[in-house]
Amino acid sequence: MQQERPFDLLSKSLGKGVMIRLKGSKSIRGRITSFDAHMNIVLEDAEEIEDGGEVKAKVGTILLRGGNIVFVSPV
Amino acid sequence: MQQERPFDLLSKSLGKGVMIRLKGSKSIRGRITSFDAHMNIVLEDAEEIEDGGEVKAKVGTILLRGGNIVFVSPV
Amino acid sequence: MQQERPFDLLSKSLGKGVMIRLKGSKSIRGRITSFDAHMNIVLEDAEEIEDGGEVKAKVGTILLRGGNIVFVSPV
Amino acid sequence: MQQERPFDLLSKSLGKGVMIRLKGSKSIRGRITSFDAHMNIVLEDAEEIEDGGEVKAKVGTILLRGGNIVFVSPV
Amino acid sequence: MQQERPFDLLSKSLGKGVMIRLKGSKSIRGRITSFDAHMNIVLEDAEEIEDGGEVKAKVGTILLRGGNIVFVSPV
Amino acid sequence: MQQERPFDLLSKSLGKGVMIRLKGSKSIRGRITSFDAHMNIVLEDAEEIEDGGEVKAKVGTILLRGGNIVFVSPV
Amino acid sequence: MQQERPFDLLSKSLGKGVMIRLKGSKSIRGRITSFDAHMNIVLEDAEEIEDGGEVKAKVGTILLRGGNIVFVSPV
Repeated sequence: MQQERPFDLLSKSLGKGVMIRLKGSKSIRGRITSFDAHMNIVLEDAEEIEDGGEVKAKVGTILLRGGNIVFVSPV
Repeated sequence: MQQERPFDLLSKSLGKGVMIRLKGSKSIRGRITSFDAHMNIVLEDAEEIEDGGEVKAKVGTILLRGGNIVFVSPV
Repeated sequence: MQQERPFDLLSKSLGKGVMIRLKGSKSIRGRITSFDAHMNIVLEDAEEIEDGGEVKAKVGTILLRGGNIVFVSPV
Repeated sequence: MQQERPFDLLSKSLGKGVMIRLKGSKSIRGRITSFDAHMNIVLEDAEEIEDGGEVKAKVGTILLRGGNIVFVSPV
Repeated sequence: MQQERPFDLLSKSLGKGVMIRLKGSKSIRGRITSFDAHMNIVLEDAEEIEDGGEVKAKVGTILLRGGNIVFVSPV
Repeated sequence: MQQERPFDLLSKSLGKGVMIRLKGSKSIRGRITSFDAHMNIVLEDAEEIEDGGEVKAKVGTILLRGGNIVFVSPV
Repeated sequence: MQQERPFDLLSKSLGKGVMIRLKGSKSIRGRITSFDAHMNIVLEDAEEIEDGGEVKAKVGTILLRGGNIVFVSPV
């Protein structure tokens, strides 16, 4: 099957900015540097973002566990 | 077994609009471009929809983790 | 073992109306057109039903993820 | 190991009445007609029971997903 | 490895009284008659116990799904 | 790989005191006598500990299901 | 595939300080001494951190179950 797969979006986003929504409505924005089949993701220059869109805290490099991710969106 | 399977609905919806309800009653509407066996789904031209049906935010391209999806409905 | 199995109820309900209760006490009523071993289910002519039994919204065709289903009952 | 196993209670209850407690403290009472290894269970003549023990609604035949079951007790 | 294993506590408790705490802080006390590798457990002469320790209801024989068990303690 | 593994902390704690935090912020303190690969753990001389650190109840021997454990810490 | 993987961040952090956010928004800070494929992690000199960033309690050595981890960030 040559149809595109969902994880292709992560491959194409390597080195680029993404916004990641976590369970409990926390959001993290950063540059994706790696991911695996469980959707575990490492971001660099990551920032915690509030509901209103303002930066709440700078978190630098961060490993997000896939099981807590709701969605990933390129920014 | 030649009976239709649930994921056939996703295959037939490729390139078309769907409304996806997530846990916690958030809804996302967009054009489905790919999915996999875990019901991970990529939407393009996606919008976050409020309970009342109004567009809350435009989110562009988005990868939704299957584990958070409650239902998918063609629109 | 020739004893009847729970999924036989879904097979016998194909093309017929069922009420499906989801986690968070949302209910969906519709005609079941397919299901799989994860209890993912597609309904046609589906309607979202309120606690009191009134139709809250018509949702047409809908794919329900098995993991969110609490019970299925023929109507 | 010839020791009795928990699912033997379900086998012995086939055709008989059981009370099933679901997550979120909903209870369903009915006659068990089938079950599988995931503890998916079909009840006939099922009734939704309130905390106080009164019948809240008659639901007829119902397929309960095992993952939502807290306990099963013969009545 | 000849070290004792956690399930040995269940084996040694067969026929004896245990207190079982379920998710959502409900407690059930009874005599354990069987268990399996998923920690599904059958109790006889079971009673639902309130936070304060009083008997809330007699439930007789009961099959508890392992996934809802927080802990088991001999009494 | 000869690097130390997380479960080595449990092996080294056998026969010694640990504090275990459960989901829902309950804490149990006791002497660990066995554990398995699912992090199911048996404690002896266990006590339920309140947020403030006082002993809420003595529970004696207790089998904790791994799936409800948040962390384990030697005391 | 020679691309970096998310767990490489844990390997590179061995012996160094990390901040770990748990479900329910508790945070733990400490020096990571081991981890496994389930993201179970042992920290030494660990401290429980409040939302505001102050140290709430010193917990010494601690084994965190991977299933409760939201993210890990080097500090």
